[in-house]
Amino acid sequence: MTAPQQIQPPTACILSIGDELVLGTTLDTNGRVLSIALREAGFDVIEHRTVRDDLAAIVAAFQSLAGIASVIISTGGLGPTDDDLTRDALNHIIDNNAAQVEDAVARTDLDTWFAGRGRTMAAINLRQALRPRSARIIRNREGTAPGLAATIGACRVYCLPGPPREMIPMLEADVLPAVRPAGALMIAKRTLGSFGIGESALAELLGERMTRGREPAVGTTASGSVVSLQVVARGADASARADAEMTACMAAVAPYGFAAVDASLASSLLAECRAHGRTLAVAESCTGGLIGSMLTAVPGSSDVFQGGWITYSNGMKEAHLGVSPQLIAKHGAVSRETVMAMAEGACAHSGASLAISVSGVAGPGGGTAEKPVGTVWIGLHDTQLGTRARRFVFPGERDTVRDRAAKTALQLARWLLRGEDASMIWERTGETTDAHAAHQPSKRTS
Amino acid sequence: MTAPQQIQPPTACILSIGDELVLGTTLDTNGRVLSIALREAGFDVIEHRTVRDDLAAIVAAFQSLAGIASVIISTGGLGPTDDDLTRDALNHIIDNNAAQVEDAVARTDLDTWFAGRGRTMAAINLRQALRPRSARIIRNREGTAPGLAATIGACRVYCLPGPPREMIPMLEADVLPAVRPAGALMIAKRTLGSFGIGESALAELLGERMTRGREPAVGTTASGSVVSLQVVARGADASARADAEMTACMAAVAPYGFAAVDASLASSLLAECRAHGRTLAVAESCTGGLIGSMLTAVPGSSDVFQGGWITYSNGMKEAHLGVSPQLIAKHGAVSRETVMAMAEGACAHSGASLAISVSGVAGPGGGTAEKPVGTVWIGLHDTQLGTRARRFVFPGERDTVRDRAAKTALQLARWLLRGEDASMIWERTGETTDAHAAHQPSKRTS
Repeated sequence: MTAPQQIQPPTACILSIGDELVLGTTLDTNGRVLSIALREAGFDVIEHRTVRDDLAAIVAAFQSLAGIASVIISTGGLGPTDDDLTRDALNHIIDNNAAQVEDAVARTDLDTWFAGRGRTMAAINLRQALRPRSARIIRNREGTAPGLAATIGACRVYCLPGPPREMIPMLEADVLPAVRPAGALMIAKRTLGSFGIGESALAELLGERMTRGREPAVGTTASGSVVSLQVVARGADASARADAEMTACMAAVAPYGFAAVDASLASSLLAECRAHGRTLAVAESCTGGLIGSMLTAVPGSSDVFQGGWITYSNGMKEAHLGVSPQLIAKHGAVSRETVMAMAEGACAHSGASLAISVSGVAGPGGGTAEKPVGTVWIGLHDTQLGTRARRFVFPGERDTVRDRAAKTALQLARWLLRGEDASMIWERTGETTDAHAAHQPSKRTS
Repeated sequence: MTAPQQIQPPTACILSIGDELVLGTTLDTNGRVLSIALREAGFDVIEHRTVRDDLAAIVAAFQSLAGIASVIISTGGLGPTDDDLTRDALNHIIDNNAAQVEDAVARTDLDTWFAGRGRTMAAINLRQALRPRSARIIRNREGTAPGLAATIGACRVYCLPGPPREMIPMLEADVLPAVRPAGALMIAKRTLGSFGIGESALAELLGERMTRGREPAVGTTASGSVVSLQVVARGADASARADAEMTACMAAVAPYGFAAVDASLASSLLAECRAHGRTLAVAESCTGGLIGSMLTAVPGSSDVFQGGWITYSNGMKEAHLGVSPQLIAKHGAVSRETVMAMAEGACAHSGASLAISVSGVAGPGGGTAEKPVGTVWIGLHDTQLGTRARRFVFPGERDTVRDRAAKTALQLARWLLRGEDASMIWERTGETTDAHAAHQPSKRTS
């Protein structure tokens, strides 16, 4: 393995401008898009800042960020109204408030935009053809607000409009080609999703691979109980070294890792079903369609996924899955016996070769001392591998319990086909309280 | 109506800390939550800043923001690992890097947290009981990372953990009561959700009520096709004036408004079913369980919602909903006839008195000239009101089409029970392309 070059990548900052962003009325998604694009272009993104539609605040932010970054990309504040102040702020800094000039190209684009829509341009829109004398226009083909490019000292500044469908094409067509460093540092990224283990327990498995400053860098982030693992290699052979590091990480975190993060747990299960020639059905009580919804969110899922039942009432479980009323009366709807019967019924009635079933107490009501809120039984029936069930007690509120139950069911089904040990799921965070169920999964043929 | 007092509100800034936020790996939603909460507590939020897990950057951000705001709330960087540096940054600023002290309450909370889960605390977690000498601990009952409260000069600083389910309870229990100005301006807020109309069309219905600077203030925000309407009244009689304004707004936007925004479209439909003595079932094809998932996300939905079928394959539609193979062969699975038969079958086989059915082309594949991607048929069968169906062509990608289809189905079912004109849904944004289906809903008894 070649030692990476120690090249310091250029730095970038992102400035979002708008009252609606600072006030929380609108969630800013541009920052994230810009971060990812700038990183891929070889930049070290060091700060995001969001300020109001206030001239002094915008000026101060540009000046302060220009002191720490080699590139600033701003979004917002380029509209035609009085509270659109980005142009004026830039003019204040680079041209000392001199009169702005009408840009011929911008003016033509504006005229064309309105003419093409059969609309008369309001006088107020003429402001959008103005630019500071030392700035250059960035053409906008999706809207009326052109962008601006300029320099503040040694820092290159690009001002783009706020709407993503205008901003992103301008970023890709103009800004990124201009800022991408000549002979840019090679950066290779690899990502893996994992489920069934907490973030700190995953970090333990990764050990010194996560040491800060190590090359390639390995990091983790958690969202909705899915812990994603990223490998970033920089410099010569970045791609090969990122691959090697990811291979080592996958070995360290098996069987929790499931796929590149852009793929979901559901799509990984569907792929596993395809590989093993299985078709899939669901029988959902407390998750109420959530597992089906996750599976059908995957384009092309219909070759594997047949469908299923949302058996929220006991009557539905009995009438359509063939769960006997006596069984429910004896063991309860939230029980090993019920979910096993549900999974077997789902296969029998759908013709699928693998079925997932769930029944639980999602809360906030319905909990008892014996079956507290969070208690969820997950059943699996496979026409070749038999039936099994496990009990979990998931922490959190109704939404969290349901989400965790659905994803746990997907991971368990995937593990079943791969021959992984089902008792490993969540074992490190103690979310299985039923050690008997966890460590001696029942297996029977139906 | 009394004129509101002209008081200059105190200023606040929000600092988000974490590589994953700056790098764009994770979308920061805390900033928005904090902005809204701080505004409601009477603050003028003037800036958000996001910095890396870098000691110097965190120190610089705290110092710079402390110069412009009377309150700073930070999130993130309080975990147990080496890249959690918020505590050290604060210690650098307020205690000149003096040795930190173990906080007795924080230590007890940590011990209790691990003991309650039957887990042994790793040595690394002990760091989380440390605090700078001049800081105070903010207890965290949902996780292991306590928060910190301190002052930098005249600025009050509150450091909270990043995960929203830990951060939000700490914000509400500790931070907001501490920072809310004594004798704060009376503020009353009312919120309404709406669905089936675009944001700008809703603004047209509201007219001058949305004029900037008007009191009470009326604003809208859109998320996931749901447009929320907020009324904020300030000063004397705020509550009564907010109620009166909301009543007027509800009249202006009927029938699109469905409930206070904290309630969902699904819970509004469930309430409508209760009021009309209906029980509910679903038969989902392209939404694949999403409608069931939305309905069962509502606590206590089981008194109304019986369950349903995810009939992703034609075989499932035929075997379990009684849709005839000839009908599907003649009209296709995505057709008026199929969704009407699905809805009727769902009632007949579940015993529910109202059923919702959906079949469509969610994409990205499967579109044809006649039935392009986004084409969705929604059927309703009510044992008293008969059967009807409508066709939509929703814009956007697979997720958006499915989400829009599910919510449209919920709103249409709600309108059916309320006797509203189904042709009004999305009429102002042209998302129904089948005018015949829209304006002459078939009605038949089954």
